[in-house]
Amino acid sequence: MNPVPAPTSRESYHTQHSPFGAFASFTIGLVDAPGGFGQSLRGPAKQNVYVGYRPSAASDWQLLPFLTPPKSQESAFTGDAIVQQAPTGYRALRPGDYQRTLDLASDTWRADEARFGFSLLSPFGSVPDPEKLAKAAARFHLAPIICGWIEYDNRAGNAPVELMFGVGDPERPLRPLSDTSTKLAGFAGGADYGYATTPARGVGLRQGFDVLNPKLKDYRGLHVICGESALVFTVPAGQRRRFPLVLGFYVAGTVTRGLAASYAYTRVFKGLDDVLVHGLTQHVRYTRLAAQRDRELNRSKLNIDQKFLVAQATHSYLGNTELLWQGGKPLWVVNEGEYRMINTFDLTVDHLFFELAWQPWAVRNALDWFVRRYSYRDQLGLSFTHDMGVMDYFTPAGHSSYECDAIEGCFSHMTMEQLLNWVLCAVTYAEHTGDQAWLRRQKKTLLACADSMHRRDDADPRKRDGLLKLDSDRCGPHGSEITTYDSLDVSLGQARNNLYLGVKALGSWVLLETAFTGLGLKESARDARVTADLLAHTLTTKFEIDTGFFPAVFEQGNRSRILPAVEGFVYLLFLGNREAIDRSGRFAALFAQLSRHMTQALQPGVCLDPTSGGWKMSSTSTNTWFSKIAIAQYVVRRLFPEAMSSAALVGDHVHADWQRTPGCGVYAMCDQIRSDSGITCGSRYYPRGVTAWLWLHE
Amino acid sequence: MNPVPAPTSRESYHTQHSPFGAFASFTIGLVDAPGGFGQSLRGPAKQNVYVGYRPSAASDWQLLPFLTPPKSQESAFTGDAIVQQAPTGYRALRPGDYQRTLDLASDTWRADEARFGFSLLSPFGSVPDPEKLAKAAARFHLAPIICGWIEYDNRAGNAPVELMFGVGDPERPLRPLSDTSTKLAGFAGGADYGYATTPARGVGLRQGFDVLNPKLKDYRGLHVICGESALVFTVPAGQRRRFPLVLGFYVAGTVTRGLAASYAYTRVFKGLDDVLVHGLTQHVRYTRLAAQRDRELNRSKLNIDQKFLVAQATHSYLGNTELLWQGGKPLWVVNEGEYRMINTFDLTVDHLFFELAWQPWAVRNALDWFVRRYSYRDQLGLSFTHDMGVMDYFTPAGHSSYECDAIEGCFSHMTMEQLLNWVLCAVTYAEHTGDQAWLRRQKKTLLACADSMHRRDDADPRKRDGLLKLDSDRCGPHGSEITTYDSLDVSLGQARNNLYLGVKALGSWVLLETAFTGLGLKESARDARVTADLLAHTLTTKFEIDTGFFPAVFEQGNRSRILPAVEGFVYLLFLGNREAIDRSGRFAALFAQLSRHMTQALQPGVCLDPTSGGWKMSSTSTNTWFSKIAIAQYVVRRLFPEAMSSAALVGDHVHADWQRTPGCGVYAMCDQIRSDSGITCGSRYYPRGVTAWLWLHE
Repeated sequence: MNPVPAPTSRESYHTQHSPFGAFASFTIGLVDAPGGFGQSLRGPAKQNVYVGYRPSAASDWQLLPFLTPPKSQESAFTGDAIVQQAPTGYRALRPGDYQRTLDLASDTWRADEARFGFSLLSPFGSVPDPEKLAKAAARFHLAPIICGWIEYDNRAGNAPVELMFGVGDPERPLRPLSDTSTKLAGFAGGADYGYATTPARGVGLRQGFDVLNPKLKDYRGLHVICGESALVFTVPAGQRRRFPLVLGFYVAGTVTRGLAASYAYTRVFKGLDDVLVHGLTQHVRYTRLAAQRDRELNRSKLNIDQKFLVAQATHSYLGNTELLWQGGKPLWVVNEGEYRMINTFDLTVDHLFFELAWQPWAVRNALDWFVRRYSYRDQLGLSFTHDMGVMDYFTPAGHSSYECDAIEGCFSHMTMEQLLNWVLCAVTYAEHTGDQAWLRRQKKTLLACADSMHRRDDADPRKRDGLLKLDSDRCGPHGSEITTYDSLDVSLGQARNNLYLGVKALGSWVLLETAFTGLGLKESARDARVTADLLAHTLTTKFEIDTGFFPAVFEQGNRSRILPAVEGFVYLLFLGNREAIDRSGRFAALFAQLSRHMTQALQPGVCLDPTSGGWKMSSTSTNTWFSKIAIAQYVVRRLFPEAMSSAALVGDHVHADWQRTPGCGVYAMCDQIRSDSGITCGSRYYPRGVTAWLWLHE
Repeated sequence: MNPVPAPTSRESYHTQHSPFGAFASFTIGLVDAPGGFGQSLRGPAKQNVYVGYRPSAASDWQLLPFLTPPKSQESAFTGDAIVQQAPTGYRALRPGDYQRTLDLASDTWRADEARFGFSLLSPFGSVPDPEKLAKAAARFHLAPIICGWIEYDNRAGNAPVELMFGVGDPERPLRPLSDTSTKLAGFAGGADYGYATTPARGVGLRQGFDVLNPKLKDYRGLHVICGESALVFTVPAGQRRRFPLVLGFYVAGTVTRGLAASYAYTRVFKGLDDVLVHGLTQHVRYTRLAAQRDRELNRSKLNIDQKFLVAQATHSYLGNTELLWQGGKPLWVVNEGEYRMINTFDLTVDHLFFELAWQPWAVRNALDWFVRRYSYRDQLGLSFTHDMGVMDYFTPAGHSSYECDAIEGCFSHMTMEQLLNWVLCAVTYAEHTGDQAWLRRQKKTLLACADSMHRRDDADPRKRDGLLKLDSDRCGPHGSEITTYDSLDVSLGQARNNLYLGVKALGSWVLLETAFTGLGLKESARDARVTADLLAHTLTTKFEIDTGFFPAVFEQGNRSRILPAVEGFVYLLFLGNREAIDRSGRFAALFAQLSRHMTQALQPGVCLDPTSGGWKMSSTSTNTWFSKIAIAQYVVRRLFPEAMSSAALVGDHVHADWQRTPGCGVYAMCDQIRSDSGITCGSRYYPRGVTAWLWLHE
């Protein structure tokens, strides 16, 4: 049934090639666009990247299109009034000239009938708790590197072929690594980033105003005042050679404010040279790790579009990860893409499934920080802040960087949302990992969360119906709370009496029942169960018999139709809570209504965009979010498969096309997208797309 | 005789406001252009700077034009497809609306009939040897700050007036300093830079997507995810209030490669907060220091254009200074403007006069490093590299970043030039400061320099005529040496048989005679004297009787006419070597010819540009350099006053206009300028203009 169309011919997209936990990316891929090394940036860097081959010294360089025509800086030195000219002697390959393959942990370009190959690897795997990691293991898992290789099959050739990997950045000339290490051939920008291969016969260095045609050479054949540098490799006639590449980052010292923390990798690496040598030494192991990841995704049952989406999302997720060390302990951060907010909680709850697969301690770490520093009590009890700060600045305890007072809509408080997010993350983490010891330590917090949820329903227990409907006094008398869907229309943005939050609250009470039972808190467990049932019943009363839909908000006659109506079930599905997800079980009545809701919603003109065919979060907004589409797809396919209309099935291809064409691809993975045009309207360079990881659990 | 015309109405130029030794600038001034905080940059930063006042909360902000219309980043968060709109509620003042006064250590803008005032101070003074500086003194002299104030005279007003100082940088939201210090009201970018005033009544903070109209406020009235921040000051009706400002920079840890060094100020300041609090605590003292500098320049006999040039040059010089600490000792660096080469030796020799006035140890420090690490021996003996590296990367010992092999013209070696530069700097330093102990330690080097100079004349002592004429074998068989004037025409670029270098060699031999005499090296002193006389005689034989000019190069019938013919006398004039500068003394014959040369050269169409009237280095090039004009002016006015034609006198005004209009002003002080258009063609954001300091010695 899954359609497997060929990728679009307009394919052109950036991908973040990123180490684990270094908040750094080497971004390339968009056609005719620069990219390169970026540390803690909100989008792609602006270095030209020179990657390609030339069949002989007399022919033009054939370069992958990772550059804009560079301008020599030479005239600034020579005082010439001559207009700067683009260099000659190269041709930027056209998309038809090469084939690109993005896999889970690799990105490979082939050209010249596949004789030329270039690949960047982002090897990742299960990372053990960094607190318990021996040094050698820490060096392997936390190395701020990406690996790569460049190759040419010249077995049929009769002249040597040259290969090039280099970067150009007029703002910052690089320095040759050979000054400080005999084990490295390559260049570095200060102590911050660099690229290297192993010194060998056939490996040369170049540096010049125009690295393609360097005219000027110092005593060692370089010119270190110039902003363009490259490794040049020679493949003799009759041979096939593949050369390893390592790209590294390093930021020493305190990198955050508010809380003073440094990168965890600085505990086990002395500096950039150490990082690069390590990467070359362990290159085979990293290559194997990347290949293993690639194989796993390729062998999965996902269709080609889904595989692409998982791969692209994972790359951007890794680029936003930042493992810090603070006060002798790990401090886990995922940055929020272009906004660079720290551990935005409504992203944490979405990264949950990926992180539980690869680094479950990261979830626990974030939850602990939310309790310790980023919780607060308003008039109704406990909740948590939207985030922990922005761009390496940790905000004061109890306050996010995002939330403002006395407003409605974007930038208001997310008190109800984040309260649920803590419950959902905490119990999902504990149930999935079996870390009951940790959950026991959270007893007080879990009880306070349950209490806070009750009080946000109604002060009077007798008047409660399970729905969250009281805004935090942090909003002031005239403001009101929002949800994570702040930038969609009011159908999803408003928190109180909200369908999405209602179902999410239902999921939370079910998980609380599980947790309280495990903790021996019978009374609380019973209360959670009763509340879940009450809430489920209340939700059924909101169903519009006439239309067969739920309204998005149970207020003011709202008639928006939303896909996140079922998002709250993702945790129960993920944990395999059979009782709760039994279609004919305790929530049967609600499931029947939701089935109808989703089946009707997944039709063109409702929650399928009539122009593109892509999935829309809300029938009344063209702003749609890929990360949330991915969750909805998972829930629908597992719980409401009858809703997967043939029109809905086309979605994967549409969503993949959005990401692999420049409308989104200019910023690597994007989350907020106009459903009609496929052009991103926010949340660029974004980690949240790893919700697609759920698909591997189907 | 000095014309004092009013400054041009097209006045619009950036100025670097910079601490001593921090390689950092806060650059503003160019009309309708951003600028702001820049660390180690090759040109102005790109932050909007918000400085101005509004007469009441209901009226528009009146802002100095230090910005381009900012675009709110809000839509990236809200997902709105709405086109970003420039904020309303402000007016960028037009140059006619305000008066700007650049003084030696201050830059002041006045508007609203002088009721509004804003000033940035770059207080500098005599800095004692940092190696011997007590901590309190080190904190005062090395603080990486600039000071400032903002004021309004509201004595006649009947409503409170608000003042604003702020910056906007969408790439980097700032954080409020109040998080970490109760003594600071202001904002910081990470730990790297920030601005602050003292918390007080009437001082408020703002931060928002649009700092002029902040809609969104968090619990403390800010919004820390936003890239625009400001201090807002209220001046009640009936009062006049001036508020102090401090702008600080801080870079921790190792900042250089090749040689690992850190900023000297990090030894006495813990971080940015410490720096800013210090600046506010010592604000009065810094203000006094700046005022003293301003007074000195204002009381000098220089004309208004000369004063402007000295002030603008000094600001850019300070922005290029970088005092490092390496191996427990100071390491002095002046960066070469947009090229950021480290201690380019042919700039060191020009900065000499300024540095001997304020920090003579810096000259000695650079000379020591040139001997220790950046000297080499070619086939003819000792010389020194062109520079010590580029952009905080120290090149390997014995090699510069600039010099390439086997070429003619730009980027070739400067062996002869730098050999003379070491001699000139060393003896001028020792004679001016009286540091004979240091000179004694340089005995071997001085003797080796004299030997190397001889051998670059001719291998056979009997064939020597004093002129340097043998190229270093570093140039290879087909290359040839250049001089500092590399980017002018061949008249100045070629080193061998070069008039400019010939007279500079004459100056060097005179200084060597002095030095050797002081060191008791009678034989060498006599040899130096004899060589000087021989060289002076040789030079007289090159004079063209028919034209009354010297050729620029004594080869191939060159007929370019150059002003640097007399540059070599600047050292003798500066040191007051009466015997050598006696017009009727030992060099009388040469002086008579040079008088004629310069008198004829300083005519329109020769070395005065026929279009602009500005001074040209060479009759055959329109590329002219302000720093070298300044030296030529000093020498001409002191030694050849008869050459100062009325046409030549207009130069000051022309040169000042070049710098204070956008042709140069877009990059603060510029050195390489097209003499016809006044537009810079290289050497932007440049320190070398401080040669104008010589004028205060006239």
